[in-house]
Amino acid sequence: MCLPGTIEAVREDLEGPGVSRRALLAGGGAAALAAALPGTAEAMAPRRSRRRSTRVTDLTHTFRAGFPVYSGNPPARKTLVSIEKNGFYAQEWTFGEHSGTHMDAPGHFVAGGRLVTKLRPQELLAPAAVIDIRARAASNPDAAVTPDDLRAYERRHGRIPKGALVLMNSGWAAKVNDPAAFKNADAGGTYHFPGFGLEAVDFLLRRRAIRGIGVDTMSLDPGNSKTFDVHKRLLGADRYGLENVANLSKLRPRGATVSVGVIPWEEGSGGPCRLLAFG
Amino acid sequence: MCLPGTIEAVREDLEGPGVSRRALLAGGGAAALAAALPGTAEAMAPRRSRRRSTRVTDLTHTFRAGFPVYSGNPPARKTLVSIEKNGFYAQEWTFGEHSGTHMDAPGHFVAGGRLVTKLRPQELLAPAAVIDIRARAASNPDAAVTPDDLRAYERRHGRIPKGALVLMNSGWAAKVNDPAAFKNADAGGTYHFPGFGLEAVDFLLRRRAIRGIGVDTMSLDPGNSKTFDVHKRLLGADRYGLENVANLSKLRPRGATVSVGVIPWEEGSGGPCRLLAFG
Repeated sequence: MCLPGTIEAVREDLEGPGVSRRALLAGGGAAALAAALPGTAEAMAPRRSRRRSTRVTDLTHTFRAGFPVYSGNPPARKTLVSIEKNGFYAQEWTFGEHSGTHMDAPGHFVAGGRLVTKLRPQELLAPAAVIDIRARAASNPDAAVTPDDLRAYERRHGRIPKGALVLMNSGWAAKVNDPAAFKNADAGGTYHFPGFGLEAVDFLLRRRAIRGIGVDTMSLDPGNSKTFDVHKRLLGADRYGLENVANLSKLRPRGATVSVGVIPWEEGSGGPCRLLAFG
Repeated sequence: MCLPGTIEAVREDLEGPGVSRRALLAGGGAAALAAALPGTAEAMAPRRSRRRSTRVTDLTHTFRAGFPVYSGNPPARKTLVSIEKNGFYAQEWTFGEHSGTHMDAPGHFVAGGRLVTKLRPQELLAPAAVIDIRARAASNPDAAVTPDDLRAYERRHGRIPKGALVLMNSGWAAKVNDPAAFKNADAGGTYHFPGFGLEAVDFLLRRRAIRGIGVDTMSLDPGNSKTFDVHKRLLGADRYGLENVANLSKLRPRGATVSVGVIPWEEGSGGPCRLLAFG
């Protein structure tokens, strides 16, 4: 455990051009996080003055009225009370669970599958691996993450760790404020945006024992899927998916830990969550 | 950074009677969290085999229909689609922002105060200090956290760290499934449940530079407050509060770090959040 007062010694990690796009941990968080890891705080004590702060990256879109949804109505809000009239301010929200940055729990597609309240807290903290398919997605909106993408990642960044959250960065998050571009529907109404391919997910489940996957688009499957094979395979394996993940271009490809702050919605098929990445 | 494969070495921290009430981190989370702290992973490498896992404690109540609210309508849910009829399952929710385990952002009481989307990610990770007033609250539902409580805490557990989240454990969370007992209204409609006293909050803001406070009841102020002095003082100081915090009896008094997973509700006065404590 760090001694009282240690945290004052934590300094901002101002490391150049990236700083304005990265949230840096000021105050007690970094030292406390270190103290929370048994065995590490003691090791850190002698090097206290050299310690750098922990970066916190927000992987969550603002949950807003009109956020593009795969089906059904987008979220809506209204003002309930105001400081002027009531002395305090609050809104009311109405939305389907698969709105904004959110989780698909196993029970979203699997009859009898675990609902969101059944996920254990320790399942909500996982090391991140970011698979960058931006170049391919820029020319092909139907691009899917393949086993080749995973092999290329591992050659460069090392083996995807057990229990990882594997996140697809297709660059699609940049379109989120333009629902038509984000959905990219053709004349027949079929969506065209990137997602995971079934083979890649099968590899991750069988060979890498991952915790889950996440995408920066509206669906774990590519938008043109009619069969939702990836949903069925992943959720059928009792793992969770995350959709509409934000800011993946700000996250390093490996080494960060994601806290999956999903609200424990009663009987929830998943639902809105706050994703924060540390490190 | 930990080497690929390190995480497999992480073992469960089975430490006796407490284990069934504590969520223990299995899989990659602990190693990844260590790797996320610059300077610690290297220090940990030689002691890898001795490393213990990080505990994750959920401080969040299930967000359920009918959850007791201070004013307005409690949350409601309905089934939108089902696996039987539609191939997938999802619900719709309607609720006021101050439902369930939730945040009060500065703008909840302060005209022009920051709304929830304006909180920086690094403000959402803070060391916890748990102030236990269960004994006094058991005999007096109007009990408030006082400077004496804070002094007693510091004598026993050391100085409250800068940037801390100071959490009142009054034992009230045990009543959450009985709205009448949780609100404890008298014949005149005045609530009676514990909260923070103004003097204690003033001390924490002036002398300890805290990040925020949290309570296991419906309001930062004691239930019988008509003036909401603590809300006004805390939010007026641009700090946030957390209400309906769960499971504080499972958290150690100091040394844990809380991830405040509040959804970034557009124009939000605060709102539902997932609170996870590490360590």
